[in-house]
Amino acid sequence: MKKLLSASAFAVISTGALAQEVARTLPESVGRVAPALEAFSNDALFEGVWASESLSMRDRALVTFAALMTRHEVESLATYVELALDSGVTAAELSETVTHLAFYTGWGNATAAAEAMAPVYTKRGIAVGSLPAAKTDLLPLDEEAEAAREELVSRLYGNVSMGVVDTTRELLFLDLWRRPDLMPRDRSLVTVAALIASGQPEQMTFHLNRAMDNGLTQEEAGAALSHLAFYAGWPKVFSALPVAKQVFENRDQ
Amino acid sequence: MKKLLSASAFAVISTGALAQEVARTLPESVGRVAPALEAFSNDALFEGVWASESLSMRDRALVTFAALMTRHEVESLATYVELALDSGVTAAELSETVTHLAFYTGWGNATAAAEAMAPVYTKRGIAVGSLPAAKTDLLPLDEEAEAAREELVSRLYGNVSMGVVDTTRELLFLDLWRRPDLMPRDRSLVTVAALIASGQPEQMTFHLNRAMDNGLTQEEAGAALSHLAFYAGWPKVFSALPVAKQVFENRDQ
Amino acid sequence: MKKLLSASAFAVISTGALAQEVARTLPESVGRVAPALEAFSNDALFEGVWASESLSMRDRALVTFAALMTRHEVESLATYVELALDSGVTAAELSETVTHLAFYTGWGNATAAAEAMAPVYTKRGIAVGSLPAAKTDLLPLDEEAEAAREELVSRLYGNVSMGVVDTTRELLFLDLWRRPDLMPRDRSLVTVAALIASGQPEQMTFHLNRAMDNGLTQEEAGAALSHLAFYAGWPKVFSALPVAKQVFENRDQ
Repeated sequence: MKKLLSASAFAVISTGALAQEVARTLPESVGRVAPALEAFSNDALFEGVWASESLSMRDRALVTFAALMTRHEVESLATYVELALDSGVTAAELSETVTHLAFYTGWGNATAAAEAMAPVYTKRGIAVGSLPAAKTDLLPLDEEAEAAREELVSRLYGNVSMGVVDTTRELLFLDLWRRPDLMPRDRSLVTVAALIASGQPEQMTFHLNRAMDNGLTQEEAGAALSHLAFYAGWPKVFSALPVAKQVFENRDQ
Repeated sequence: MKKLLSASAFAVISTGALAQEVARTLPESVGRVAPALEAFSNDALFEGVWASESLSMRDRALVTFAALMTRHEVESLATYVELALDSGVTAAELSETVTHLAFYTGWGNATAAAEAMAPVYTKRGIAVGSLPAAKTDLLPLDEEAEAAREELVSRLYGNVSMGVVDTTRELLFLDLWRRPDLMPRDRSLVTVAALIASGQPEQMTFHLNRAMDNGLTQEEAGAALSHLAFYAGWPKVFSALPVAKQVFENRDQ
Repeated sequence: MKKLLSASAFAVISTGALAQEVARTLPESVGRVAPALEAFSNDALFEGVWASESLSMRDRALVTFAALMTRHEVESLATYVELALDSGVTAAELSETVTHLAFYTGWGNATAAAEAMAPVYTKRGIAVGSLPAAKTDLLPLDEEAEAAREELVSRLYGNVSMGVVDTTRELLFLDLWRRPDLMPRDRSLVTVAALIASGQPEQMTFHLNRAMDNGLTQEEAGAALSHLAFYAGWPKVFSALPVAKQVFENRDQ
């Protein structure tokens, strides 16, 4: 609970200043070569989508960072690191997001994100000692759910790649997901954002359910889809919509 | 009709010079580390595919730019901006392509493309005042088709993400697709190229049909698939072939 | 057979030195912004996965290079070129890998890889004359298998894109796959790695079977999946697991 509060309470700059910072994510060149894109950006995206209260500014910044990191848009990551930190994502949460998405979108995306983050952290005086350590007290394990997951994966794929079965259990579900400095709800949110951004709706059912089990509301999930349409492209979101619809309907029963 | 003519009439350099410019897209390093790749490039791709009349040089340059922008190959985009402009794609059309693909492949691909285009436009003296403005007279709307599309999407996904339903209608189908400085046939062509390049054949049926409704011939579509095999990789095209086959067969009935 | 021997025999630096070189693929910034990621990298990935004998160091380096090239992680390719060469991948094999993956993941990935390789090859004194030439004696063709492949593709897609049918036959199966300086087993291995990394498990059945026909063991394939989970992300591998399972089971019958 403390963590959830801190996530929103640390937004240190005003909403107006934040709106300006969002608008600064658009390179000046856009206005010179594509005036229509500049107008769509300002009117629909920055003043429309980002300002909508259906998803918090903090969640929007986190989801956008996750999508761009997944897409390896390395040249703009530093800008979105700044935006995330100014929107109330803590330095610890962002550090954990990068570690989490190393597993969910590939190591190279995470090392590139670290390269973009390091100068920002240095400039802001964020010392490594203040970030989550490698060894930390883990959140409690839902042993029943984990036993069911492990039984299924082991039965299906144990004779295909025992390495995948073992590392999935030991590194991801007994360790990564239980690290306390990024809440399970947020881990699921960035995982879902990454799956949409990488065009993998076929892997989304488990993680969207998990996100909602951990507190993501249906309204927030719908708003995240709408937000991600801009950053991952409409077709990626249209391929994710039927999966989200199925998840929502199954949970309503 | 004026637009269609202008697209081909503005090719200001000769076919021989264009062939040389296509060949210059290959970095010199290729010949030093992979002589076979250099030979495949020159013999099969530049002198073969690019020279084939099954698709115009102008369309090939447009489709290639769309694919590379979608794949975020930012380091080579400027070269393909030059090639597109020299092949008869107008500066206005390229500007609209970037705006269009912001929606279809993500904002970050479009801003990166703008960064690559701006120096080229400056060098060529292409002023922002000569490019399509944000507000412009829109092409007429096919109200019946749009009502059917909207009804379907709203019924399917209105309770999943009203934000997606609303922005799809307001931004994409009532606005973007009706902007006159890139013909509907070309908007569909770059959309299909983007879907193939991003590995989303599941979203291609609607857009390939739309492309052909708007004048893309079956021969051109087949040639675009063959062209894109080189720039998006064979497997992407092999996953798109069954979708194209189904579209062609349904239209022949 | 000579080639297979040379592949492992040319590892010119010791296992201990190689382990250090693997560890140096992690940018120093990771430790400053994500200590947990640094620990996962060192403990699980470098000392765990890379050291596991279920797949040779040489194959791990080759598979990793193929995945990163496919993902267009251009900023780190030079590091993995060095690692591949030090792990026993020959300069000729790496040259052929780049040529091969031009077709399987797109020309722009190959030209970017060439840009990263060229300075390394220059530094190591690897002259272009020592690399496989464009024209070379080709491996014998399995005419029956090729006739069956061609008949199927031509029948399915001849009326969709004759260009794809023709170039697939002439460039890929009558030429590229028969080039002798990268063994068929290795061509299949990098192709499978590329398909997993680009999220195209739907294209994997043919190539994984081909890999195993050409000598890749089931244990090696399973180890490659486990290895690639780190570099392409867990979800990409989980989408590939059911395909691999089906291939393994069909071959066991």
